[in-house]
Amino acid sequence: MRIARFTTGEDPRYGILDEDSDELVVLRSDPIFAGLETTGERVALDTVRLLSPVIPRSKVIGIGRNYADHAAEMGHEVPAEPLVFLKPNTSVIGPDDPIVLPPWSREVHHEAELAVVISRLCKYVPAAKVQDVIFGYTVANDVTARDVQATDAQWTRAKGFDTSCPLGPYLAVDLDVSDLAVRARVDGVVRQDGRTSDLVHKVPELIEYVSSIFTLLPGDVILTGTPAGVGPIEVGQRVEVEVEGIGSFSNPVVRRD
Amino acid sequence: MRIARFTTGEDPRYGILDEDSDELVVLRSDPIFAGLETTGERVALDTVRLLSPVIPRSKVIGIGRNYADHAAEMGHEVPAEPLVFLKPNTSVIGPDDPIVLPPWSREVHHEAELAVVISRLCKYVPAAKVQDVIFGYTVANDVTARDVQATDAQWTRAKGFDTSCPLGPYLAVDLDVSDLAVRARVDGVVRQDGRTSDLVHKVPELIEYVSSIFTLLPGDVILTGTPAGVGPIEVGQRVEVEVEGIGSFSNPVVRRD
Repeated sequence: MRIARFTTGEDPRYGILDEDSDELVVLRSDPIFAGLETTGERVALDTVRLLSPVIPRSKVIGIGRNYADHAAEMGHEVPAEPLVFLKPNTSVIGPDDPIVLPPWSREVHHEAELAVVISRLCKYVPAAKVQDVIFGYTVANDVTARDVQATDAQWTRAKGFDTSCPLGPYLAVDLDVSDLAVRARVDGVVRQDGRTSDLVHKVPELIEYVSSIFTLLPGDVILTGTPAGVGPIEVGQRVEVEVEGIGSFSNPVVRRD
Repeated sequence: MRIARFTTGEDPRYGILDEDSDELVVLRSDPIFAGLETTGERVALDTVRLLSPVIPRSKVIGIGRNYADHAAEMGHEVPAEPLVFLKPNTSVIGPDDPIVLPPWSREVHHEAELAVVISRLCKYVPAAKVQDVIFGYTVANDVTARDVQATDAQWTRAKGFDTSCPLGPYLAVDLDVSDLAVRARVDGVVRQDGRTSDLVHKVPELIEYVSSIFTLLPGDVILTGTPAGVGPIEVGQRVEVEVEGIGSFSNPVVRRD
């Protein structure tokens, strides 16, 4: 089952995608907090604007160097423990929202990733129990200012700037994420094409690890890392990210004067 | 003027401290969002429990190595630009709440700091205009797992864990923060005793810099860095942080089995 957050010009709403009719079955409220009660209304998918499927009330947790081929292309070893960083909720945008290149960077990269969305308040979740705290999965672009990542002591600016966390197009629930394709395309050209089976630290281990640091809140998002093939995005391009079984979305790249 | 968030056992409320009578003049709602309308009720300060004076809806932004004497004691240069990191809102606690030492660290340090609280949504704030976006100031302890800070590639775990951001006791508005004492005491013994006049990057420059990265939201908190004298805190100790003109508060140090 796939769930969208969307607008038809009024307040954002949530809906379950009816795969046969390409309609959204409207939900009464945010499904993470209020369950899957429907209103009876249906809206055609091609009449809505999809939004980021989740609004993190607290944090987006990123994981670095979690595919061996990407760690190698950046000249790094795979870390023994997950390499954790934070993106603030102010970095989140949705499908078709512009990625705004910051004025202080000249080299911004795409990073296609599988993202996990947390369902409930939790701490110290053992790997064997993580299904109890996963609401679903979405697709992320962990947009990264590569030049500044190399020169700043911390990755906060490189990975936390406004528009650096496109999420979409759906929240997929009940998905087996053990072996899914993860792809990025720039203007239609495939740049990244990996598989979640190559994740160094798998989803259960990641949740066990990050939940030993932070209390996780409903709607918190965990980015699982990116496969090889990262590269620059430029003004005027369109960057698409995809995870098999969830879907794909794209964002135009702009720079403000 | 100083404002507290407090509870008398029921829902949290806000109040203006009447310095003469040691009473809190109760506010109708969160002053950052709803202004300073009072209810007419007064509550004696010694009958309430003070809470973290602000709940960040988005982020706590930290600044590293922002006093030359502290940078030197850690063996670092002062950075040319502010060194930015994030603490999630799940790290925030209030006065008297326990600092819980995480099981994966053996050396946790206190860091007394002046903290700035943002009043409204803003981006790209010039240094000359920062007074327009500052609601007030509070006192922070940027609790840091020093061992893990040295071995992890990023500071996220070292500085982001639950209970690592005690804030209190008040929000001080209309305060001149250019030369205030910043102190930490452990079991009554002074460990840090610096002055905000020694900040390398001052508050206006910090806000200009971080607002060029992130949209700031009302209630976002910016920690301005810590002076020399940081050191370990141990189970059973009580650590107090103070900024002149705002006040002081303390937290007991515990470890869960």
